[in-house]
Amino acid sequence: MRQFIVLGHDAPMTSDFSLDDLAGSAGRLDALCRCVNSAFFLSHDFRGDARLFLVLQDELTIRFEGSELRRLNPDERSTAALIRKALEAKSKAIGHMEAESTPGVYVSKRDFEAVLDAASKKATVIELHEDGSPVVDVEPPENPLFVLSDHGDFSDEEAELLAEQSDLRVRLGPKLLHGNHAMTVAHNYLDTEGYADY
Amino acid sequence: MRQFIVLGHDAPMTSDFSLDDLAGSAGRLDALCRCVNSAFFLSHDFRGDARLFLVLQDELTIRFEGSELRRLNPDERSTAALIRKALEAKSKAIGHMEAESTPGVYVSKRDFEAVLDAASKKATVIELHEDGSPVVDVEPPENPLFVLSDHGDFSDEEAELLAEQSDLRVRLGPKLLHGNHAMTVAHNYLDTEGYADY
Repeated sequence: MRQFIVLGHDAPMTSDFSLDDLAGSAGRLDALCRCVNSAFFLSHDFRGDARLFLVLQDELTIRFEGSELRRLNPDERSTAALIRKALEAKSKAIGHMEAESTPGVYVSKRDFEAVLDAASKKATVIELHEDGSPVVDVEPPENPLFVLSDHGDFSDEEAELLAEQSDLRVRLGPKLLHGNHAMTVAHNYLDTEGYADY
Repeated sequence: MRQFIVLGHDAPMTSDFSLDDLAGSAGRLDALCRCVNSAFFLSHDFRGDARLFLVLQDELTIRFEGSELRRLNPDERSTAALIRKALEAKSKAIGHMEAESTPGVYVSKRDFEAVLDAASKKATVIELHEDGSPVVDVEPPENPLFVLSDHGDFSDEEAELLAEQSDLRVRLGPKLLHGNHAMTVAHNYLDTEGYADY
């Protein structure tokens, strides 16, 4: 199982945003939608073994479960519509319990710490870091969990929590990538068993 | 210089499409917009050494010139708006001459063959192919030109033309990727000098 946690610092917390302004008044939701795309889409295929958590403003979490997703399309607008449906369902999520808004999409009132605790139990937590080891030198773990930020950097608190919990610290290359691009590179690293198997 | 040619088989040829329906009535323009994103965006930076050609229905070509682009944002909708402006300007493009619609965006009445002929002059043409060599075994050329298709496959004619002109045939991994994801992997391969320099 491949897991990704993406932190959305400015993401909307309610469903009253416009699908026509994802990059503006919807708090750069476009960036998170592209992460959903990178997590799951293959050409004429789908990554059923992937799971993505979007953590919104460290308060709400939307989980996308690859093996259960049914209505996901690659474009930003329709993905944002699924996120809007999840936000509409948030009143049904009590405490850390999740509510399913559409097939394979779950919302809960969990912050980054709670999600990281739960997701890391059977996973190898991978921090992407400028000072990390070149990923090509690191053997791919069986159950990797990558933690990424949206268009903004991690807060000091988030970075500290991640550093505490991380099992591996790697770098994907000499350039700093957008979150969705980093996810694509991470998938390719895993697909090829660390650039060994083509 | 890194160049990419992406063939859009169902892309709109006129500007009268809705930005609200990129994945539907606008002929999957969303897929081409994601290719524009992959070509140019870095975290807090921009790939000024990249050039992208979108070939629309083998009739019109829109060139994005990284070193000149000014108004590009990462989201699909605003990118589609730039493409719409390019389509509005197509009457100013006479023969193979280009017209600039917004800074760094040019439209011309060129088909795939004309664009490939022009772009490949000082470039190493790279074909992504299931039977190609693992890209990790191939030394990155100085001026690579990658040719990709949108959500659909190459037509027989396109595949033939590309096979004739290609200098290298590589595979990026064991999974077939969407065009925009393949571009991100290709950039990472080049950024790292073939997975050697991190």
